Amino acid sequence: MAFKRLSILGVGLLGGSIGLAAKAAITGLEVIGYGHRPATLKAALETGAIDEAVGTIAAAVAGADLVILATPVGVFEASLRQMAGALMPGAVVTDVGSTKRSVVALAERLLPKTAHFVGSHPMAGSEKRGVEFARADLFHNATCILTPTERTDPAALAAIEAFWRTLGMRLTRLTPAAHDAALADVSHLPHALAAALVTMQLAGNLPLAGKGFLDATRIAGGDGGLWRDILHDNADNVRASLLRLRGELDHLLELLDPKESAALQAWLDDAAKRRDELLRQKLGEVTPD
Amino acid sequence: MAFKRLSILGVGLLGGSIGLAAKAAITGLEVIGYGHRPATLKAALETGAIDEAVGTIAAAVAGADLVILATPVGVFEASLRQMAGALMPGAVVTDVGSTKRSVVALAERLLPKTAHFVGSHPMAGSEKRGVEFARADLFHNATCILTPTERTDPAALAAIEAFWRTLGMRLTRLTPAAHDAALADVSHLPHALAAALVTMQLAGNLPLAGKGFLDATRIAGGDGGLWRDILHDNADNVRASLLRLRGELDHLLELLDPKESAALQAWLDDAAKRRDELLRQKLGEVTPD
Repeated sequence: MAFKRLSILGVGLLGGSIGLAAKAAITGLEVIGYGHRPATLKAALETGAIDEAVGTIAAAVAGADLVILATPVGVFEASLRQMAGALMPGAVVTDVGSTKRSVVALAERLLPKTAHFVGSHPMAGSEKRGVEFARADLFHNATCILTPTERTDPAALAAIEAFWRTLGMRLTRLTPAAHDAALADVSHLPHALAAALVTMQLAGNLPLAGKGFLDATRIAGGDGGLWRDILHDNADNVRASLLRLRGELDHLLELLDPKESAALQAWLDDAAKRRDELLRQKLGEVTPD
Repeated sequence: MAFKRLSILGVGLLGGSIGLAAKAAITGLEVIGYGHRPATLKAALETGAIDEAVGTIAAAVAGADLVILATPVGVFEASLRQMAGALMPGAVVTDVGSTKRSVVALAERLLPKTAHFVGSHPMAGSEKRGVEFARADLFHNATCILTPTERTDPAALAAIEAFWRTLGMRLTRLTPAAHDAALADVSHLPHALAAALVTMQLAGNLPLAGKGFLDATRIAGGDGGLWRDILHDNADNVRASLLRLRGELDHLLELLDPKESAALQAWLDDAAKRRDELLRQKLGEVTPD
């Protein structure tokens, strides 16, 4: 199943980068972009991320054999409702959302049986926003998590996996529930924690913060509305992650006792070792295999 | 008061960088290095961070008009005891420790009245260790916090401030207590938190962590023994910072309620804004004034 007409709903950093990367990788692919702001569509056309700009979702998906939902998580339901009646029979629909249970359930409920939905989470991005930061190599060597269910069409899943692989991504599969639980730990909680670390600072102390603090809180620099949607959509898992972190912090409070010198060093050394292993593994992935 | 003979106790990344920077900035300065490992001293000589290597603290400080304590916080007391009898009358002693109450109190108690101690915290460094990573420009545009007390000799304070300024540093003064409280918030807690964030991860999820997670936990990659000493030395403040953070996380738990959509976004937006302001301010400081 080679795609000929790709419709990207939402041409921000991610959607725009998909357009650039797909056009570079797939000969003859036609890319249609939908956005609700004319200025964004104009910029997407100018950067070459899309070939054609359309102002309604129904018009954008008409005739597309691949539709990628790249609007914010918070408007997925409205986007799915608007596309439902306009999808071509056999069209494959995927998304790039950071949470998966809700979008997969919505798509399976709202889309017609003649279309095939496959949940995707390409783990690439930036705290920057907007199509002007789009890059064709954004996905190169990054991980894409696919979240098929028992209702997912195997041919559509294979086609979507081939699509992300064409963009240079490494693939892995999880259930929507397992995805959301894992991402709460490795992404959503760290984001909220970075915000908490900034918020708790007394104004007078902040100028004393150094490079370490700036690195530790970089992810707090993102878009508040977008992250509000993610944290609320995955609130049960984020709550569980937060409570587990709180348990770890309670343990740290005990380790601050001078008698716990060896235990505190072991706790710190173990964290440094686990992070070093992760870093080595990630650096290893930079070499294409 | 122009220094002629500098004794650096501990020639790791910081001590070695001080040697390189001071020799580049001060004509005719003689730099003596002390370290307990012969291989480190050899490397320090080879990189040009020191002119002479000495195996005992007493021998290293003899004849020095400036002594800089750059050993780990945990061995400050032993180092001060060993130098006390060997200091030249009028010698100025400072340190580079990340906590200040304990070292200032120890120095004022253990050093002879004929020597002058001034607490310093040059906020430069790296998660890397060892003199092989030493750089003459490590201190350029970084902040150095001086922690004088009512017992500090004003001429010695002025001389130490001139020394750090010669190395390109920006200066600020705090009491030892105010320093330790502020650093718990902006440095020591973030470090412990990064370690907790790594430690709480389930092994199976960690490979899904991306660049954001690696940035947020970079400071957890440091030396466990060194950070154990800092956290224990400043345990009362770190405990207070941790409890304040926990209050912020309890607030976040409330914001995860779907009814708190506007409040959660405002909380996230406020953190992003405060961090952006800090970043702009830090970037502005890169231009020498």
